Amino acid sequence: VHEISWTLEMAEKAGYPHFMLKEIYEQPRALKDAIHGNREIIKGVAEEIANYDRIIFVAMGTSYHAALVGKYLFQRLAKKVPIVEEASEFRYEFEDLIDDKTLVIAITQSGETADTLAAMKLAKRKGAKVLGIVNVVGSMATRIADLTLYTHAGPEIGVAATKTYTTQLTVLTMLAIELAKVLGTASEDYLKKLENELMKVPELVELALKHDNAIRELADVLKDKRDFFYIGRGISVPTALEGALKLKEISYIHAEGLSAGELKHGPLALLEDGVPVVAINPSGKVFDKMVSNIEEAKARGAMIISLSDREELSRVSDVLIKMPRVDELLSPIVYVVPLQLLAYHLAVLRGNDPDKPRNLAKSVTVE
Amino acid sequence: VHEISWTLEMAEKAGYPHFMLKEIYEQPRALKDAIHGNREIIKGVAEEIANYDRIIFVAMGTSYHAALVGKYLFQRLAKKVPIVEEASEFRYEFEDLIDDKTLVIAITQSGETADTLAAMKLAKRKGAKVLGIVNVVGSMATRIADLTLYTHAGPEIGVAATKTYTTQLTVLTMLAIELAKVLGTASEDYLKKLENELMKVPELVELALKHDNAIRELADVLKDKRDFFYIGRGISVPTALEGALKLKEISYIHAEGLSAGELKHGPLALLEDGVPVVAINPSGKVFDKMVSNIEEAKARGAMIISLSDREELSRVSDVLIKMPRVDELLSPIVYVVPLQLLAYHLAVLRGNDPDKPRNLAKSVTVE
Repeated sequence: VHEISWTLEMAEKAGYPHFMLKEIYEQPRALKDAIHGNREIIKGVAEEIANYDRIIFVAMGTSYHAALVGKYLFQRLAKKVPIVEEASEFRYEFEDLIDDKTLVIAITQSGETADTLAAMKLAKRKGAKVLGIVNVVGSMATRIADLTLYTHAGPEIGVAATKTYTTQLTVLTMLAIELAKVLGTASEDYLKKLENELMKVPELVELALKHDNAIRELADVLKDKRDFFYIGRGISVPTALEGALKLKEISYIHAEGLSAGELKHGPLALLEDGVPVVAINPSGKVFDKMVSNIEEAKARGAMIISLSDREELSRVSDVLIKMPRVDELLSPIVYVVPLQLLAYHLAVLRGNDPDKPRNLAKSVTVE
Repeated sequence: VHEISWTLEMAEKAGYPHFMLKEIYEQPRALKDAIHGNREIIKGVAEEIANYDRIIFVAMGTSYHAALVGKYLFQRLAKKVPIVEEASEFRYEFEDLIDDKTLVIAITQSGETADTLAAMKLAKRKGAKVLGIVNVVGSMATRIADLTLYTHAGPEIGVAATKTYTTQLTVLTMLAIELAKVLGTASEDYLKKLENELMKVPELVELALKHDNAIRELADVLKDKRDFFYIGRGISVPTALEGALKLKEISYIHAEGLSAGELKHGPLALLEDGVPVVAINPSGKVFDKMVSNIEEAKARGAMIISLSDREELSRVSDVLIKMPRVDELLSPIVYVVPLQLLAYHLAVLRGNDPDKPRNLAKSVTVE
């Protein structure tokens, strides 16, 4: 008789080799929970914050990238221009710059990030309104905030944030849509279309996950590369930053994300034969501009890995990861998924434990 | 008879092996010209823009880093929070977000940067007030802007911006001081002290240049390193970004600048034995916080190269580049100088022509 013993950890991983992969695959479910968990309350929150004109997002790490997406969403839909600050900067620089006419939106998965909590406390002390976007129920951030929106992603064990990021984006999208409704800053038809499409995003993420095998094969080709660049424009800039951060965190490859417009202003000097450039390029207003940037990189011999719904990109790409068609404003939720998988497979192929990256803790609870 | 022929280029280089080095050494003179060229007119410009509450800096590349320093200066002195946008993003995202109550401050050395000109034109079309901070007299940017402040750096031939950056910072500092006077947002004593100290900054840059030989020796030790990180906090974050950009541009080493507060949120995973971390840490309100970040990096085996006026940093540093004591708000002008020299010497030691970096043009006049 062979006895098969399951450790608690194996059981918790539900058959996945790592928590990170399990959590990447949990995203369709997590996104649905984020939508359903907030749909009743989002209107009330939007009404309560709609009149603030000075809006400051504070966050760190992956949550900071969510805040950057939030900025684009607020600009496009609510016609408001938020300021996005790293919490570690805000806490030392904004003492004299905020008051009771300021709305501070703090994004933190754990609700225990030291810098973000300090930023929230400063904001409260100065009379600002504080909205938290938090995953962990009952965490310190939820006790400091005037209002909390939960991301409903469930516990995240992998140190590299995945499902907590895409659920943050989902909540921010819902909030921006509701703000636009309250303020009348976007057409009702367009907002209705966006809402309907947001309901389908969990399925689009399922489709993106189907690239898993192809991305593992791609990772095998890329596993000895030393430098990666991730580029995007508009609302895809934060996706480029987040893709690069994932790779840094768990594969220990020096990856850098940047706005494609900045390429010519310096980083292009680093491109030579075979350097991978991951280009995020969903259909949208800056699609053609990105094609030019991709061509520039290609002309220097870079290996172009494009993410797009447009087949024509295969002309300028070494690899095209074909994405489902989705509204540009929702694309950050869908497009980050292959980047999570790429970082995961590169980490595993390089012999790293993606769940326990060196030097990093899940929540940064000290300054 | 040996005939010594001087080419025009050799004559123009005034004995320096490269234009870039010549221009680095021209900074004390250029800074004086920037100060004297603007002291009569800066008050009028400050009065004309003092009442704008929505201020948006637009710029690219090195000028974008100047804009980031400008943001800190405006915050600390004028108690205003500017938005800083890459011009390449602003032009496609801000159509509906600006009006005649918006002040757009465009920074461009050449006055011909395509994205920045497009951003300025958009701003004008929407009725915004446009202030240009420009080096090249009579360039297109000066014709679009409502108001222009010149940096008076003289012609810059090296592709990597040096004296045009520190003169941009000088003009921004003068403008922030004048704004604070007009608005009464900082004590007169402190503003007077800052003004007096700004007059001495050219001499402090002379002192910084005396590190040239030591930095060349340091470059010799570092020349085979593949990855550099530059960290700072507060007003030194843009200095970190600019130091990294210089290295990217001319040495083709993958260098990345970041806010030190972000280290624990991912980049720390990339630090291992011997990876150079350049830490910008002038005396100031976040000095001690930076020491903690340096210690974190040191604990992972990183090779710490600190720039500071505080001797005590030698305890946590492998190399301390001792800087003259200067007010924190003026430190970006002085602290970037050793970083320019480091990039220059690394480029030369690696066999590159620092004046003509691959793939890059002096002005990015196409999109």
